[in-house]
Amino acid sequence: MNQIEIFAPGSVANISCGFDVLGFCLDPIGDIMRISKTKTPGVSIGKVTGQDLPTDPEKNVASVAAMALLKETPTEFGFQIDIEKKIKPGSGIGSSAASAAGAVFGINQLLGAPYTNNELIRFALAGEAIASGAAHADNLAPVLLGGFTLVRSNKTLDVIKLPNPSELVATVIHPNIELKTIHSRAILKPTIPLNKAIEQWGNLGAFVSALYTDDYDLLSRSMKDKVIEPYRAMLIPKFEQTRQAALKSGALGSGISGSGPSIFALSRGMQTAKKVGEAMADVYKKLDLKHQLYFSKINTQGIKILSQL
Amino acid sequence: MNQIEIFAPGSVANISCGFDVLGFCLDPIGDIMRISKTKTPGVSIGKVTGQDLPTDPEKNVASVAAMALLKETPTEFGFQIDIEKKIKPGSGIGSSAASAAGAVFGINQLLGAPYTNNELIRFALAGEAIASGAAHADNLAPVLLGGFTLVRSNKTLDVIKLPNPSELVATVIHPNIELKTIHSRAILKPTIPLNKAIEQWGNLGAFVSALYTDDYDLLSRSMKDKVIEPYRAMLIPKFEQTRQAALKSGALGSGISGSGPSIFALSRGMQTAKKVGEAMADVYKKLDLKHQLYFSKINTQGIKILSQL
Repeated sequence: MNQIEIFAPGSVANISCGFDVLGFCLDPIGDIMRISKTKTPGVSIGKVTGQDLPTDPEKNVASVAAMALLKETPTEFGFQIDIEKKIKPGSGIGSSAASAAGAVFGINQLLGAPYTNNELIRFALAGEAIASGAAHADNLAPVLLGGFTLVRSNKTLDVIKLPNPSELVATVIHPNIELKTIHSRAILKPTIPLNKAIEQWGNLGAFVSALYTDDYDLLSRSMKDKVIEPYRAMLIPKFEQTRQAALKSGALGSGISGSGPSIFALSRGMQTAKKVGEAMADVYKKLDLKHQLYFSKINTQGIKILSQL
Repeated sequence: MNQIEIFAPGSVANISCGFDVLGFCLDPIGDIMRISKTKTPGVSIGKVTGQDLPTDPEKNVASVAAMALLKETPTEFGFQIDIEKKIKPGSGIGSSAASAAGAVFGINQLLGAPYTNNELIRFALAGEAIASGAAHADNLAPVLLGGFTLVRSNKTLDVIKLPNPSELVATVIHPNIELKTIHSRAILKPTIPLNKAIEQWGNLGAFVSALYTDDYDLLSRSMKDKVIEPYRAMLIPKFEQTRQAALKSGALGSGISGSGPSIFALSRGMQTAKKVGEAMADVYKKLDLKHQLYFSKINTQGIKILSQL
C-alpha cells in the first residue's frame, strides 16, 4: 500500500461531567486526509484546503504526531500528508485531534498496522500538545477508538472504550467565533472547591453507569458541570440561554463541547436532536450570529478508511 | 408483625477513588437490632449491649432515623429498639450507618414496607447526620441496597446500585484507636487542586466501568486517592506501610475505609484476602497495636432479617 485516504472525524470532549477525561466521536463532521509514501524519509505537509494551516512539519499538528510515531518506528521512506480541513480550528470539536489522530492512523495502516489504535494515542498526543498547550487525550481517544471513551489517566494514557446507548444523537452548534483551547484553559482556576469536585465525580460515575445500563434518565441527571462551565461559559455568547433552549426542547443534556465555543446536546433519537438544534439555532439567529449546526449519531468506529492503493 | 430482629452490616465508604460517593457492604461484621412495637407512640432505645450508646432518643442515631420516618408516616403505636452493637463507633466501617439504616429498615418492615429500601436512605440520613456532622449517604446506600453503590448526588439522594464482580473479597483491619468522622472531616481542605480532581474522577469513572466489565486489572489501577488520603493518612498509625503490605501481598487496591482508622483492601478470592490480612496485621503486631481483622465477601443483600414475630 502506497497511499491511504481517510475520514478523520470530529469529537466532543468533556461531556459536561468528565472534564479532561470523557469524549465521544462524531459521525458526519470530519477532515479528509490523504497520506502517501514518499521516497525521501521524513514527513511533509502537501496540499491543504479549507483552512489556513502551517505547512512547516514542525508546526503542523498532523506532521508532529506523524514524526512522533516515526521516531519510534523509523522508515527508509517518508510520508506526505494532504489535508482537506473541514473542522475549523478553535471550534471545540476536536480539530487538532482529528489531524493528529488521522495522521498516525494513516501512517500506521501504511506500515502494516504495527500498533493498535489505543497505542497510537500517545503519538497523536505529541501533535495535540502543540495545538492545545497541554497534552490531553480526551478528544484523541474517541477519534481513534470510536464511541464514548474515558481517559483514566492522561499521564499513563490508560484509555477505556465505553458502551454506546444506541438511541443517542448529538446536536452540535458552532457559533462563528474562534476560541483557542490554550485561552479557554487559561481562564480556569488551579483549585476547585472540594464539594463541587464531589458533585462532579458523583455525576461522572453515574454517567458511566448509565452508558452500561442504557439508562437515559440517569444520563440526563448526570450531565452537569459546576466546575468548569461557569468559567468557560463567559467566553461563549448566550451559552446558558442556548443550553436551556436545548433542554427545553427535550435534550437529555447540553454543555460546552470541549473548550468551546461549540455547544453540544445529547438527545434520544434524531427527531428530538433536530428539534433541539432548531431551538439552539434560534438563539443565534436572533443575535444575527453566524453558526453551523450538526446532527450526529455516535460514531462507534472512529476514523474510516475511504480508499487505499 | 410485632417484632423483627435484623442484622445491620458494616460498610466501606469511599473505596479510595470515590470520596463521599462510593461504598460497598460487608458481610460478617454487623449489629443485631431488635425492633418491637410498643403501645405508646414514639421511639425509645431499650437494651444496648456491646458499646456505650446514648439512650436519649434525641441523641441516638437509630432513634433519630426512626423518628424521621415516623414524622412522615405517623403511627398510633410506638417502637422500642434494642441494639447488640458490634461495630465500634469511630472505627470507619459505618457504625452509625448500620444503626440508622437498621432502624428504618426494621420499622419499614413492621409497617408493611410502605417504602423501598432506596427511599429509606433519606430517613436514615437524619440519624447519620448527628453522628458524622454532615449528611452523607455513602455508607447508608450499601447497607440498604447491598453490594457496591454510588451516590450520584448527596443533595437529591440519587443513589445507584452497581454490579459486583463475584471474585472480590474485602480485608478490613481496624487498629484500636477511635477516630470520629467529624474530626477526620475537619482535617480536609475546602479546595483541591484541579489536576488532582481530574485524576480522581478519571479513576472513579474507570472503577465504575471495571465493576460492569469484571475487569480486575482496571479495578486495581483505579483504586487511588491523591485528594483525601494524604491528609487523613496522618491520623492513622503506619497507614502507608500497612497499605503497601496489602498491595505487596496481592491486593488489587487498599485505602482508608471511610474516614478511618480502619484500612480496607480488595482482593481476588478469599485466599489472597487472607494473605493480605496477615501482612497488614504484621505491621500492627510489630507496633504492639491491638487490632481486629475481618475478611468479607461483598454483601450483595445488605441488611438481613434474622427473625420476625
